[in-house]
Amino acid sequence: MDLITVREIYRNREQYLNQEVTVGGWVRSIRDSKTFGFLVLHDGTFFETLQVVFADQLENFADICKLNVGAAVIVKGTLVPTPQAKQPFEIQASSVEVEGTSAPDYPLQKKRHSVEFLRTISHLRPRTNMFQATFRVRSLAAYAIHKFFQERDFVYVHTPLITGSDCEGAGEMFQVTTLDLKNVPMTEDGKVDYTQDFFGKSTNLTVSGQLNAETFAQAFRNVYTFGPTFRAENSNTARHAAEFWMIEPEIAFADLKDDMVLAESMLKYVIRYVMENAPEEMAFFNNFVDKGLIDRLNSVVSSDFGHVTYTEAIEILEKNNDNFDYKVSWGCDLQTEHERYLTEQIFKKPVFVTDYPKEIKAFYMKMNEDGKTVAAMDCLVPGIGEIIGGSQREDDYDKLLARMNELGMKEEDYKFYLDLRKYGSTRHAGFGLGFERCVMYLTGVANIRDAIPFPRTVGNCEL
Amino acid sequence: MDLITVREIYRNREQYLNQEVTVGGWVRSIRDSKTFGFLVLHDGTFFETLQVVFADQLENFADICKLNVGAAVIVKGTLVPTPQAKQPFEIQASSVEVEGTSAPDYPLQKKRHSVEFLRTISHLRPRTNMFQATFRVRSLAAYAIHKFFQERDFVYVHTPLITGSDCEGAGEMFQVTTLDLKNVPMTEDGKVDYTQDFFGKSTNLTVSGQLNAETFAQAFRNVYTFGPTFRAENSNTARHAAEFWMIEPEIAFADLKDDMVLAESMLKYVIRYVMENAPEEMAFFNNFVDKGLIDRLNSVVSSDFGHVTYTEAIEILEKNNDNFDYKVSWGCDLQTEHERYLTEQIFKKPVFVTDYPKEIKAFYMKMNEDGKTVAAMDCLVPGIGEIIGGSQREDDYDKLLARMNELGMKEEDYKFYLDLRKYGSTRHAGFGLGFERCVMYLTGVANIRDAIPFPRTVGNCEL
Repeated sequence: MDLITVREIYRNREQYLNQEVTVGGWVRSIRDSKTFGFLVLHDGTFFETLQVVFADQLENFADICKLNVGAAVIVKGTLVPTPQAKQPFEIQASSVEVEGTSAPDYPLQKKRHSVEFLRTISHLRPRTNMFQATFRVRSLAAYAIHKFFQERDFVYVHTPLITGSDCEGAGEMFQVTTLDLKNVPMTEDGKVDYTQDFFGKSTNLTVSGQLNAETFAQAFRNVYTFGPTFRAENSNTARHAAEFWMIEPEIAFADLKDDMVLAESMLKYVIRYVMENAPEEMAFFNNFVDKGLIDRLNSVVSSDFGHVTYTEAIEILEKNNDNFDYKVSWGCDLQTEHERYLTEQIFKKPVFVTDYPKEIKAFYMKMNEDGKTVAAMDCLVPGIGEIIGGSQREDDYDKLLARMNELGMKEEDYKFYLDLRKYGSTRHAGFGLGFERCVMYLTGVANIRDAIPFPRTVGNCEL
Repeated sequence: MDLITVREIYRNREQYLNQEVTVGGWVRSIRDSKTFGFLVLHDGTFFETLQVVFADQLENFADICKLNVGAAVIVKGTLVPTPQAKQPFEIQASSVEVEGTSAPDYPLQKKRHSVEFLRTISHLRPRTNMFQATFRVRSLAAYAIHKFFQERDFVYVHTPLITGSDCEGAGEMFQVTTLDLKNVPMTEDGKVDYTQDFFGKSTNLTVSGQLNAETFAQAFRNVYTFGPTFRAENSNTARHAAEFWMIEPEIAFADLKDDMVLAESMLKYVIRYVMENAPEEMAFFNNFVDKGLIDRLNSVVSSDFGHVTYTEAIEILEKNNDNFDYKVSWGCDLQTEHERYLTEQIFKKPVFVTDYPKEIKAFYMKMNEDGKTVAAMDCLVPGIGEIIGGSQREDDYDKLLARMNELGMKEEDYKFYLDLRKYGSTRHAGFGLGFERCVMYLTGVANIRDAIPFPRTVGNCEL
């Protein structure tokens, strides 16, 4: 259908003023007097709405007046400037065609609804300002990430979702099976007979694409993943979902410093892209969701991120142990309260914490010369805490194998991973960015359930 | 690390000729005489290789000579033109630093390996020409799809992977569970007690994001998905994988014609983007994988796709029933042999077949006025057959409900979907593009196992 979008009208208004236009969209509000009426139209392509004036000359005037919020209409008319009004222009309708009515029990009325209520109607909530803004920013941020990496000739690699291995033992996993759960086949020694399952073995949903991505980095040098990952953790918090999207770049001929430079450039690129391409949405978040948002993001874009070692960070935090629920000491993992203190109170900007004790980090991280810490980095940002976690990878075959043995890992499960250290090993590094956390950071949205279209959490898998 | 990529050298050669450069990469081949040697370097950023000459002035000359294929090196030297040679230039090395050796049992030697063998080493196969080319094209094609939709202001929506519903009954599904399979909890009446499962109900891996995407199209007007989908079908063919990626645009205020215009533009855009951005890879496919590839793709880009109704197509095919294993008649589903005959023999270009019998299409497709056919379209392309399947959706509440009842579907499972027809329903349409089929089409690669980094098929879930 040959319709002009509201986005096009706002962005190139000069071209359309005093011209006839045809737009299609949904009624946000409607009121009428005896001889004319106003309806506010939203067409989904732009955050702002378009006012339509319709008069009783229209033969279906009575039908239009009866329309409810949510109805779909196609409006033809002249776009005229309205210098006295709040909105810059309006359409004086020569026809209003009803595309689809909206039943009287339409749950979204003009008043503001709570996010908790809106979560119960995830098929309708994208029609509200709040979720229009969030999901457009989400889409733009996803594209910005692709654009950033593709402009730098990174290869996008689709790592598998169904996996036979448990990458880093990173939390509980979902099992994937085609076995009949009412009648699970068992072997003679009382184990589940996975030879009868679809893949002939036990399989799970991935928790990370990193190990697979490493195989590609040793072929293409610079690669990234962007796909769903899963955690079957029984945690009901505002920051955890069972299904979420993750970005995992992996770079060869690179060390931890290169990794941090990449992470910093990527974050700044995404922030800039979203602020430039969704100014109306960002203004909305700044006004209604998180007052300091735009200032904070501007300051991130223009500042050099801080750097501090874990050991230094602990010294700083120990002096302030009185302020924390969890007291810190060398060797402990940092909690969100510590992370936020560092980035918000001490550095007042994003900061990389590096060189963590090996005990609290994954087996594949490169051992530092001190034998106690590994070449890991977490990027902490104000308002959130950790947003990125990465490391240089252990590229030495013997050291990696020794660490795996120390942790009781089975060598045969990681043969492919050890092979990478056997055939042309290179210094390499990478990181993971949880995409929903990134969206929360960009928008100020406080609950992960509102940053993903159809959230999956314990006990919740609607639609 | 401050390395220049081989891509950069090839693309901006004038800038680097007779200059000192430092590159890092992997040895593709190596040979030496007593006083000097040649190694061919591939750095993963570019399809072509770079020759390096090293002489016995280098103090580690003997070590370099001992290097095996696959070793990683960092080479410093002068890039000099070689007008007499096959390659345009080479590096005369002033140093060759060994980053990582390659063990003598490295499975990839200079000879050509079979794709069957390479599938057994999916962590190493991206280092071969064949898979370098395939996975770079895959990455570029993925980006081209995002770019196409984002330039048109479509919203990218992440539809869920874990789902409580079976979208269209489209084939077998994988179950997702955290229940202990050795000891599945049962209810008193002998059913699996899913209230004890992670989500409190039975869940599966999605077969399509379409129904979810429709909810977003009724809010944002134009949206698309690009994510993994799953089929637990026990079919061991060259065209089926259990895990694959799919693109599903959905457009509101649009009919089947708009849908076909969108599909045709998208395909042409992706082909053009890949041919422009991977000329070396495409030349390789054309020379070694599929002789007519580039001609075929060029002709697709420059031709208007054909259009034929299912009924007309059947008339054409019936005349040629002698040529087919499966004879056609009105009402039957088209097999690949019929599809290829239509697009290759009759139309000699891509063709849309429209208006299929309702019985062989999904419940949500819009009924045509004849009451027998639905507003569906399949796009058939030479060499493959069906690459895209789409339809206008039934937007009338009563007709949709009647069709669901006819098919014995449960109304309560689709309440959200019916709601879309109750609150501001619009004409809308969409289609699905299987991404691996698209990659196969772009490259001539004949087996889906070679078009996806880590294929999952019956009995196969490596890495």
